[in-house]
Amino acid sequence: MLDNLDHFKCLKRGTAGAINIDPLQRGGILTPEAREAILEWADGYSVCDYCTGSLEEIQTPPIKEFVREALPQFLEVDEVRISHGAREGIFAAMHALCQGGETVIADGNAHYTTLLAAELAGLKVELVPASEGPGYRVDPGGYQEAISRARGRGERVAMAVLTYPDGNYGNLVDPKAVSEICTDAGLPLAVNGAYSVGRMPVSAKSLGADVIVGSGHKSMASSGPIGIIGATEELATRIFRRSKLVPKKELEMLGCTLRGAGILTMMASFPAVVERTRRWDEEVEKARWFAGEMERLGMDLQGDQPHGHDLMFFKSEILYEISKTAKKGRYFLYRELKKRNIFGIKPGLTRQFKLSSYQLSREELETVLSAFEEIVSNHPKA
Amino acid sequence: MLDNLDHFKCLKRGTAGAINIDPLQRGGILTPEAREAILEWADGYSVCDYCTGSLEEIQTPPIKEFVREALPQFLEVDEVRISHGAREGIFAAMHALCQGGETVIADGNAHYTTLLAAELAGLKVELVPASEGPGYRVDPGGYQEAISRARGRGERVAMAVLTYPDGNYGNLVDPKAVSEICTDAGLPLAVNGAYSVGRMPVSAKSLGADVIVGSGHKSMASSGPIGIIGATEELATRIFRRSKLVPKKELEMLGCTLRGAGILTMMASFPAVVERTRRWDEEVEKARWFAGEMERLGMDLQGDQPHGHDLMFFKSEILYEISKTAKKGRYFLYRELKKRNIFGIKPGLTRQFKLSSYQLSREELETVLSAFEEIVSNHPKA
Ligand SMILES: Cc1ncc(COP(=O)(O)O)c(C=O)c1O
Ligand SMILES: Cc1ncc(COP(=O)(O)O)c(C=O)c1O
Repeated sequence: MLDNLDHFKCLKRGTAGAINIDPLQRGGILTPEAREAILEWADGYSVCDYCTGSLEEIQTPPIKEFVREALPQFLEVDEVRISHGAREGIFAAMHALCQGGETVIADGNAHYTTLLAAELAGLKVELVPASEGPGYRVDPGGYQEAISRARGRGERVAMAVLTYPDGNYGNLVDPKAVSEICTDAGLPLAVNGAYSVGRMPVSAKSLGADVIVGSGHKSMASSGPIGIIGATEELATRIFRRSKLVPKKELEMLGCTLRGAGILTMMASFPAVVERTRRWDEEVEKARWFAGEMERLGMDLQGDQPHGHDLMFFKSEILYEISKTAKKGRYFLYRELKKRNIFGIKPGLTRQFKLSSYQLSREELETVLSAFEEIVSNHPKA
Repeated sequence: MLDNLDHFKCLKRGTAGAINIDPLQRGGILTPEAREAILEWADGYSVCDYCTGSLEEIQTPPIKEFVREALPQFLEVDEVRISHGAREGIFAAMHALCQGGETVIADGNAHYTTLLAAELAGLKVELVPASEGPGYRVDPGGYQEAISRARGRGERVAMAVLTYPDGNYGNLVDPKAVSEICTDAGLPLAVNGAYSVGRMPVSAKSLGADVIVGSGHKSMASSGPIGIIGATEELATRIFRRSKLVPKKELEMLGCTLRGAGILTMMASFPAVVERTRRWDEEVEKARWFAGEMERLGMDLQGDQPHGHDLMFFKSEILYEISKTAKKGRYFLYRELKKRNIFGIKPGLTRQFKLSSYQLSREELETVLSAFEEIVSNHPKA
């Protein structure tokens, strides 16, 4: 096949121009400034032209100022580094702060990558169960119980993770309450802000987070893969410790992480990202309005009520009923939306699905709502 | 400072338009096709629109075909995955194949990231020393001695790494000879092809490599960070093993790696990359000619003679002598080259420096040579 490779060139993104309601995609759309940056810095190790040995010390372009000053202020945290994403940040924290065989506590709604990170670091995971639907709530008090359970079995508990909000329901657990429990138990708390940092105002200090991770491609209008990890001074010394063999380099980051254009997209989008977090209330209000309209059509919003995030999980028996007799069966919803240039609900889902209203205008959301309305009213129920 | 962030926007790469002879930069320059791809796929998690749970299974765009068919054929290796770079690939292999406390053998010219990867994986490193200059050669037989030394101390040796070529001198050690020693000793051999994969023809099979890593941003005309890791079927089962907690996901990769535009740049450049590896002889010939001209000017090429790679390390007492009395002292060389729009030798270096002729035309290299010639003849020696 190496003689005919032309089909790897000129690939177009099929969803261009569509209203993309996939929660994964809403917060990562580049700003115009970031689109400029990515072309300017596209080549290979572009950002390393003036490197003197450490990514975060590069002054041209001003990565140093961004990472050492802007991001710490933005997150109200002592130290920040650039990672390949939220999961790599969580792994770095676990790997640096825990010993193999120890246990980490995580919320029952944690993203799968939290489990992978723990497993890769050789750790056990004790989950704080979420309540039954439709709330799927994680009670901060559950952290105390989970710690006690693990300790009761003789395990050494080494840290706790809170997903804020989780990636299924967009539920927000009171981080301060969790943090107090962790502090009392002598555990560092890592907050997974993949869906919050860059969308909503997030202060590690106010949350009581000892470590915080964010996802550039998910919520900071950056080209992936890129993320951030912040930590208190005390934990930063451990997570960002230097190598013994190569003393100039930070070990956990293997010397450098984002040796490419992604960091420049994060920087170029940053002014707009800071600005949009200040208008988070509008996003929440829009999400609530959208969810209300969906409920009028017969869908049921799961998770927090009133809802506090643009990520929404709906159950919809009504669409499921339709799918039983619809042409194309359970793929009908995907196809009907696609016809209307709406994208982002996984093919085959009808009975439950996630979507996001983030950074969509009311007009675009009206289009989405009308689509659902038409789909429901045009199809006979089984 | 969060109220004045405009200086993070509209940043220009200062070296645009210059002849960049920095070895780090030559092989990562995007093809026109990759520049198109990066704009098309710039947003966030762009490649995940049609994901069904695994990056390497994505069919739209055809990442699956690229990773499961094209790359394995290109490298003559059983299985390939996309990583964040060469170092992350080396770490993944070490972390998956070795137990904490064991020893890895590496060539004395190994890149610093090999040491970091070993340290991060909790491993000891036994180096095969390189000879004195100007050759700085690593003798394959040294692997046998290093294994014996480590075992003699009672250490468990778990794998070997060969840097092919190394990142300082561009020296190429006979991998087959190293591989035979490793096979006899029951050790897997990982070849670090950061400077070869995408530049020269590389076949894991012919090299005798059990694992091979490459660097997209360094040598595959891709936007960083991105790399590849290939392995024999047997080792792939271990390196790319699935998670116990999340059985659909590959553990060592934390589920997915390149969830962004970089993978599309690698794909778009791939036809040109395959093609350029077929013209590697021309690059070697050009490098030899260039080195010969530099030697005429009084610089001394270090490493393999005749030289087998575009990465060249020169010692130049003559420039060092000039620097002693030159205006700006040891920064004179950087400045003189900069004046002539030539970039890539680190500021302050005169007595020794690296450069690369890769993918530069003879005319551009003539410009570089004339610059050195002028600089040498215009300056009094101390
Ligand atoms: C809650 C949550 N955490 C973590 C992640 C992973 O983010 P990243 O791709 O930056 O590792 C996701 C992404 O889907 C998520 O939803
Ligand atoms: C020989 C060698 N190995 C590994 C690396 C690291 O490559 P990457 O940035 O892909 O991890 C380099 C880069 O400078 C190198 O020269």
